[in-house]
Amino acid sequence: MGMTMTQKILANHAGIDKVVPGQLIKAKLDMVLGNDITSPVAIKEFNKIGLDKVFDKNKIAIVPDHFTPNKDIKSAEQVKLCREFSKKMEIVNFFEVGQMGVEHALLPERGLVVPGDVIIGADSHTCTYGALGAFSTGIGSTDMAAGMATGEAWFKVPEAIKFVLKGKPQKWVGGKDVILHIIGMIGVDGALYKSMEFTGDGVNALSMDDRFSMANMAIEAGAKNGIFEVDEKTVEYVKEHSIRSYTVYKADEDAQYSEVYEIDLAEIKPTVAFPHLPENARTIDKVGDIKIDQVVIGSCTNGRIEDMRIAAQILKGQKVSDNVRCIIIPATQKIWKQAMNEGLFDIFIDAGAAVSTPTCGPCLGGHMGILAKGERAVATTNRNFVGRMGHPESEVYLASPAVAAASAIAGRIAGPDEI
Amino acid sequence: MGMTMTQKILANHAGIDKVVPGQLIKAKLDMVLGNDITSPVAIKEFNKIGLDKVFDKNKIAIVPDHFTPNKDIKSAEQVKLCREFSKKMEIVNFFEVGQMGVEHALLPERGLVVPGDVIIGADSHTCTYGALGAFSTGIGSTDMAAGMATGEAWFKVPEAIKFVLKGKPQKWVGGKDVILHIIGMIGVDGALYKSMEFTGDGVNALSMDDRFSMANMAIEAGAKNGIFEVDEKTVEYVKEHSIRSYTVYKADEDAQYSEVYEIDLAEIKPTVAFPHLPENARTIDKVGDIKIDQVVIGSCTNGRIEDMRIAAQILKGQKVSDNVRCIIIPATQKIWKQAMNEGLFDIFIDAGAAVSTPTCGPCLGGHMGILAKGERAVATTNRNFVGRMGHPESEVYLASPAVAAASAIAGRIAGPDEI
Repeated sequence: MGMTMTQKILANHAGIDKVVPGQLIKAKLDMVLGNDITSPVAIKEFNKIGLDKVFDKNKIAIVPDHFTPNKDIKSAEQVKLCREFSKKMEIVNFFEVGQMGVEHALLPERGLVVPGDVIIGADSHTCTYGALGAFSTGIGSTDMAAGMATGEAWFKVPEAIKFVLKGKPQKWVGGKDVILHIIGMIGVDGALYKSMEFTGDGVNALSMDDRFSMANMAIEAGAKNGIFEVDEKTVEYVKEHSIRSYTVYKADEDAQYSEVYEIDLAEIKPTVAFPHLPENARTIDKVGDIKIDQVVIGSCTNGRIEDMRIAAQILKGQKVSDNVRCIIIPATQKIWKQAMNEGLFDIFIDAGAAVSTPTCGPCLGGHMGILAKGERAVATTNRNFVGRMGHPESEVYLASPAVAAASAIAGRIAGPDEI
Repeated sequence: MGMTMTQKILANHAGIDKVVPGQLIKAKLDMVLGNDITSPVAIKEFNKIGLDKVFDKNKIAIVPDHFTPNKDIKSAEQVKLCREFSKKMEIVNFFEVGQMGVEHALLPERGLVVPGDVIIGADSHTCTYGALGAFSTGIGSTDMAAGMATGEAWFKVPEAIKFVLKGKPQKWVGGKDVILHIIGMIGVDGALYKSMEFTGDGVNALSMDDRFSMANMAIEAGAKNGIFEVDEKTVEYVKEHSIRSYTVYKADEDAQYSEVYEIDLAEIKPTVAFPHLPENARTIDKVGDIKIDQVVIGSCTNGRIEDMRIAAQILKGQKVSDNVRCIIIPATQKIWKQAMNEGLFDIFIDAGAAVSTPTCGPCLGGHMGILAKGERAVATTNRNFVGRMGHPESEVYLASPAVAAASAIAGRIAGPDEI
């Protein structure tokens, strides 16, 4: 019996030839990640171990992105703890306000992730790096602490679901629509502790930013990780961003999958996930008349340059509805500057949108656009749980940047073709 | 006995020929202002009165700027209350995220203030508009409620201190240095319930942005208001920004002042106010070696386009110290766009600064850069009281954009000539 992409990466990092689903292995880590919420807890645990250094100061990334620039004293204290620990441990990849971005956009951009890596991050959406053919997964702060100390982590080898993508998405349809469609199809526990492996000719029709967006939301189907087959687009991305060497792992012909789905990208329509679960997917023609109060375009799911460009294409020459706050949050300083230099900010500001410095901000109800009771937001983020963006009686509708931008103009959930 | 500028404006708005210091008068209001902290309280008081409309829907401005984009559920609820009230009362000047800015930068920019106006605002720094030769002063939320209902307010006519400005400031010296120098000289209660009237040939050597910065901080000397004599620069500013007609009030030759100070602008050096009072002014050559953690360039005091330009001149080609977060907050969407289009943001981002959407943010410890215990900030804001920007054991040093930018590079309080 052959191995899947994920299984091969794990076997390699465990230093063994072969793994099978359910097997417990100890794998070497290429990167251990934490943010301003999870790192402080991990640091306290790490300090209990009593070590005076981390396993590798180059293989830890601490990214204060959730409540930064510091929203209050508590978050300021959290970041201070991260900063002081990073200094003491000489951690190379501590990212300060002004140099930073949303962790899952930042790490690939900085070349800290390459195909074949094993990465753990104390953040659910660490699965994002699967877009690059890496195994990456969210863990708890205690595992982060152990990872920083030993450079290793225990894993139960996951079985896998294969998604064979074919065809080419229609205009205004992107990775976000595809993943919302898939989660709608299999449910929020549809891939529980499994790998979602994306393969097939259709992969090539998806940009890297589409793939980041899809891998990012694997956790929303309960998956251990999401991972894309490496193609020339991946290689080009990695060459452009990283100087690290890497290994490409391809699934064996006879790899076993618990399920195989074939997805025709051409058939996917702009899709919106209704409150309060990402599986509540509806195509744009079935959303009905839903008035909204806020639009958020950003996050680790959809705050990349392509997302900014799509939003700008739709907002160009238009005005955000008087009843809507439209908040645009480029995910990193680099994306921020690029979007500005491409003239996208002129379009956003002229349309009446606010452009934020990079932060996770409202996605997790952190800051920078929290909802009041009864308010509704369309957001390009990844979770629409009860109270996720603010008041327990507020609502979040997950969508692509195209749908979000169109909705900002319409003042209700709208498709890009309606503008 | 003649009248001062302030007394003349008040007499006119009270419909009487003559007022004297200490006299209680009822004056008509040209504008009643509130923000997202004070308006909700005012609205609740207004609702108790039982009126179904405000005195004039064009003469009320509600600017949610302190905790916006909403930092948490509470602030979201506050703004929601403002928004719904503004809709119900058809208040023209309600400013939504994406259209807004820091209130005291926004109102003049939108042409809502002209010379000779009487303006009350439920915010201490309402005195800013004195830069335009208006009488404007901070009041409480109850007065705001009464103002919205009746269009009038009671005042005790203030006596005045005359500041005769002469000469021309040296390079890198601006309005902020002048006002910090003055507050250092007379103390935080040096102008208690008095008008600070700025006059003399030196006025003309100060830009409008310098004057806004100075009038803004009149309250920091305890003044009822600060006011500048109107000159051709004022007239030019008003023509550019407002379509309203206006009256210029000049003090009588025999107006009485409790004190008269002559200030030679040429003698003023870059000045920093040490914790924890704006009166703790020291010239830059006397600051010593003070390491800092954060720099904030923005606020109603110094978030205008000239402030942005000065910061950019100093940051150009330089790097913010690794130990410093440098947060730049243009005060309005218009200033934001102009700064961007002038290439200032390229300079800021290349230097490693973060650029925020307009907000009062950290100035009042609101959000967007709160300090942890023991941290120090140099800020272009207006107050350095204990805990103003975060933890009670943090420190704020007030300075000009030039000093703030230089300090960001140096990692300690530094003058622009040291860069």
